[in-house]
Amino acid sequence: MSSPGELQAGEVYLASYLIERLIQLGVNVMYGVPGDFNLVFLDEVEAHPKFEWIGCCNELNAGYAADGYARVKQSQANSTGSNASHTTQGGVKGLAALCTTFGVGELSAMNAVAGAYSERVPILHIVGAPSTSAQKNGFLLHHTLGDGKFNVFKTATQGVTAAQAFLESGANAAEEIDRVLRVALETARPTYMTLPTDLVYAPVSKARLDTPVIPPAPTVQDKSTLPTGIKLEDGDVDKVNFVSDEIERLWTGAKNPILIVDACAIRYGVPHLVRDLVDATKVKYFSTPMGKGVLHEDSSKGFGGVYVGAISDPDVKEAVEAADLTILVGAIKSDFNTGEFSYKFDTKSLIELHSDHTIVQYANYPGVSFHTLLPALARTLKAKDVEPVAEHAGLVRKIPDGPKDQMVKQEAFWPLWGKFFKEDDIAIAETGTSSFGMIDVPLPRGGTFVSQVLWGSIGWAGGALLGCLLAAREAGYPRRTILFIGDGSLQLTVQEISTMLRHGLCPIIVLLNNDGYVIERLIHGPEAVYNDISRWKWQELLSFFNADGHPHKTWLAETRGQFEEILANEEFAKADKCQLIEVKMDRLDAPRALQLQAEMSAKLNSA
Amino acid sequence: MSSPGELQAGEVYLASYLIERLIQLGVNVMYGVPGDFNLVFLDEVEAHPKFEWIGCCNELNAGYAADGYARVKQSQANSTGSNASHTTQGGVKGLAALCTTFGVGELSAMNAVAGAYSERVPILHIVGAPSTSAQKNGFLLHHTLGDGKFNVFKTATQGVTAAQAFLESGANAAEEIDRVLRVALETARPTYMTLPTDLVYAPVSKARLDTPVIPPAPTVQDKSTLPTGIKLEDGDVDKVNFVSDEIERLWTGAKNPILIVDACAIRYGVPHLVRDLVDATKVKYFSTPMGKGVLHEDSSKGFGGVYVGAISDPDVKEAVEAADLTILVGAIKSDFNTGEFSYKFDTKSLIELHSDHTIVQYANYPGVSFHTLLPALARTLKAKDVEPVAEHAGLVRKIPDGPKDQMVKQEAFWPLWGKFFKEDDIAIAETGTSSFGMIDVPLPRGGTFVSQVLWGSIGWAGGALLGCLLAAREAGYPRRTILFIGDGSLQLTVQEISTMLRHGLCPIIVLLNNDGYVIERLIHGPEAVYNDISRWKWQELLSFFNADGHPHKTWLAETRGQFEEILANEEFAKADKCQLIEVKMDRLDAPRALQLQAEMSAKLNSA
Repeated sequence: MSSPGELQAGEVYLASYLIERLIQLGVNVMYGVPGDFNLVFLDEVEAHPKFEWIGCCNELNAGYAADGYARVKQSQANSTGSNASHTTQGGVKGLAALCTTFGVGELSAMNAVAGAYSERVPILHIVGAPSTSAQKNGFLLHHTLGDGKFNVFKTATQGVTAAQAFLESGANAAEEIDRVLRVALETARPTYMTLPTDLVYAPVSKARLDTPVIPPAPTVQDKSTLPTGIKLEDGDVDKVNFVSDEIERLWTGAKNPILIVDACAIRYGVPHLVRDLVDATKVKYFSTPMGKGVLHEDSSKGFGGVYVGAISDPDVKEAVEAADLTILVGAIKSDFNTGEFSYKFDTKSLIELHSDHTIVQYANYPGVSFHTLLPALARTLKAKDVEPVAEHAGLVRKIPDGPKDQMVKQEAFWPLWGKFFKEDDIAIAETGTSSFGMIDVPLPRGGTFVSQVLWGSIGWAGGALLGCLLAAREAGYPRRTILFIGDGSLQLTVQEISTMLRHGLCPIIVLLNNDGYVIERLIHGPEAVYNDISRWKWQELLSFFNADGHPHKTWLAETRGQFEEILANEEFAKADKCQLIEVKMDRLDAPRALQLQAEMSAKLNSA
Repeated sequence: MSSPGELQAGEVYLASYLIERLIQLGVNVMYGVPGDFNLVFLDEVEAHPKFEWIGCCNELNAGYAADGYARVKQSQANSTGSNASHTTQGGVKGLAALCTTFGVGELSAMNAVAGAYSERVPILHIVGAPSTSAQKNGFLLHHTLGDGKFNVFKTATQGVTAAQAFLESGANAAEEIDRVLRVALETARPTYMTLPTDLVYAPVSKARLDTPVIPPAPTVQDKSTLPTGIKLEDGDVDKVNFVSDEIERLWTGAKNPILIVDACAIRYGVPHLVRDLVDATKVKYFSTPMGKGVLHEDSSKGFGGVYVGAISDPDVKEAVEAADLTILVGAIKSDFNTGEFSYKFDTKSLIELHSDHTIVQYANYPGVSFHTLLPALARTLKAKDVEPVAEHAGLVRKIPDGPKDQMVKQEAFWPLWGKFFKEDDIAIAETGTSSFGMIDVPLPRGGTFVSQVLWGSIGWAGGALLGCLLAAREAGYPRRTILFIGDGSLQLTVQEISTMLRHGLCPIIVLLNNDGYVIERLIHGPEAVYNDISRWKWQELLSFFNADGHPHKTWLAETRGQFEEILANEEFAKADKCQLIEVKMDRLDAPRALQLQAEMSAKLNSA
């Protein structure tokens, strides 16, 4: 029924059950667009005192926002920075909720959901569906393909979600909700469920809410269970000990070992375990583009820079490739994360730790997870007496000079931001110029870096920013949230800035106005018309969206001098209003790493 | 190879083959967004003197634009209006081309493609894909799910496209291209193909271009073939004659027969055949919302109005339901097209003509298509001596009075536009208030009405407008193109207005500013916050987008008086620049038909 019926003692409505489950898992907001098949559910969302509906301008943007929210929540749950004490370490990792309507709404969000699947970001996608009776009768409803089939979109989503629930009655609905939530958290991937209009007020057992979706994590030291609730058999304990011994043997023989942390370390919730290992062994550590910010980027602690194979900063490349033992944690070896597969590792001196297996030299150990192995290694590996890394090794040491009355160059632009950053800042980098530009910029203590390196969907960051801002709001301490995006990219998702204004959020939106799709110009067609875009009057953007008078300010930097003045301006740095800074840059200027990557991508496309 | 190699005599590059095929089929533009896997192909698109690349702000908008383009081209190919002589009747029906990049791009367009599938609009979706060798090697590329699988998105698209081609070599590429083009035209539905970067310059036979994708249509009178190339067997001729005789028998006995034309009549290219039947029999004719505009809406010719079951204008409802024989052509009986299934037809007096079957009373005749049956009926059915329809029967006869110093009401707003329309105008109505408001407004001679009644994706019309404008540009005579859209809807796809400005197009964008999602307020949650939206300063929109100084003008009507003045203004009516007219309207005011529909939808959701 879509109006609330009487509840028996011990029952709650299905909608309330779902919302309570989300809140238990740290989800406090839901992103989406209303549609007639989810409106009744949204009544309950809106009525809940501890849960907030964030209506977005369109579903793709909503999906991106959910993605950004989950990433920053993951980062806050695993903080290794100044505010580590603010959050529960090793607890629930960032989950997000997205709600769309059947057919039209869910398909519009599919690219965002696929991106979360690719990059391992857990999102529950709730789709308001026609009533079970309308579906059974095969009614020819709007938002359908007109053929009476209601399972087409669920099928379409199977390739890009880790589990799907197609609710058909109240009887098993609570179990199904728990299942898709559990899979999302265990796999760090999006899952999908349909909620027919007539099941919103189906009564379900309230007592079930007392059993957690995922049993509480035991301390990993006892090795009897994994944090995700997967039990280790007795034989597995032997296996973990065996692998740990193998690694200890290699470690003992190594003169210059290093550790590289990658994306899956944060996705599967082990940054604190990696940090413990680094602290215990004093090993020099590096990150990849996707693992950037998982560990504190402080050279005094042993951080050596971001390694991206051939496109790394030359000093970083040299330091990494000189190692005689490499421990690689949570690697995703995609093209943009490895300098187009130009990683230089000798298998005989490589150890790979993953969420579900471990590789030591040529040996693969299925089932040996970094959840159990990292603590074992932190206990057994002895600290080495090695040279400390040079101060700011691999990171930007000085800011190149340049004329103040001309456009700022990419080579100076990024280091200048590095200087601007302060503790706890969140930096979101759009795929392309911004994500490559950020590679060489050190993050401040407590900082978070968010980028979509593997999926690389243009426009993603514009929507993701909304979710990052709302996650930051939940941190309990102030976090400036800074988006780096080009004019071509922002055109895809621009309308979501109005949602930020509506909620009084205070992003710093750094618009690199370089007249078109620069990453594509570098890969192919530098002067092609298809890489041109419409030239908008960006200075008018906030005014156009800000009809209700939320605080905002727009800045313009046509020269390097103006740009540096704005960065030095206290009003700007305070980040207490919605701000856009438009920086005019040359259409063919690009960060060092992007120039190299683009050449290699072009080559692969023609192979 | 992604750079052109040497061609042998009689060969062309695959990219050229594809473009030539599209041009042969009347496709002169391609919509999309560049991405690194389609850039090389776009070189060829850009270089072709008779083919134009229309870069859109995002892929969903591009898909909608392709949809709008195909619909207006269909309408122009089948014109029954003042300019019927401008076009070739019964020729190729509107086809459109969409080009995106692998993964990220294609998924963003999926809702648009599904809408075209649902509503039967042929679009070829070309997806630029990684090179065949990268795919074979399972490289972990950006824009993939990171698992080395390259067929996931093709699988996802299977439910919403009528055919898919996954090009793997140059050998059968031309055949595959022809197949997906043929299926798109035969089924009037979207099809899908991937074009790997290294096949862009694969050599294919040029001679193949001399054989049409679909053999030329014979005159249907000889019944030996269908226009789509499906051969009628000898027995089928007997069957068609038998069905024709059955219908003639019923027709002869009827005192008050009527004809209702619906969407599939235009989708499968038979408007001219329906018109021939109407002319020959002088039968009173009606349309549905999806069939609106297929036949000339002129009561002096026998047009009686738009029939939508219980939500019809009462006079139209009475006229249709008083008939003792109804010929229904190309019906799509979806909820919004039938007044929530409130069609009142007695099966014993109903004849349904479809593209692939015919129903006479209780008898179903598979394989008997309206392509062959309509001409047969036009020859055999005798004109009846019946009362002529009253002038403007079922259409707005007078414009309700109202205070000039207050907001214009929906009841007057739509008839006032009816008065404004002139010959050859194109009206695009967004789903919701606008599509229901247009039901009672008569179209002018040669007019085209475009709306997405079945799929009903919010925001569709904003993107579709771009395609409608570009199709209108090809008409060879001036066609004013007028979009009706609410403020909630336009927020989804607003950026595409900048593409219209960039190409110097001259839409009239009618913005119904009624503060949120009105159709949803009527279905559920009239005061719910989730039906609110950000309030933009719409008066600034064209200025923000129009950085390059294209001619434009923005109008504001806060009262009925101001609104009527603008409509009467010659500068406005001339439509020689990009114009936005913002009309302030009450947030709970709605057209008559929408109020009734919303009540019925709410009821079905709770059933």
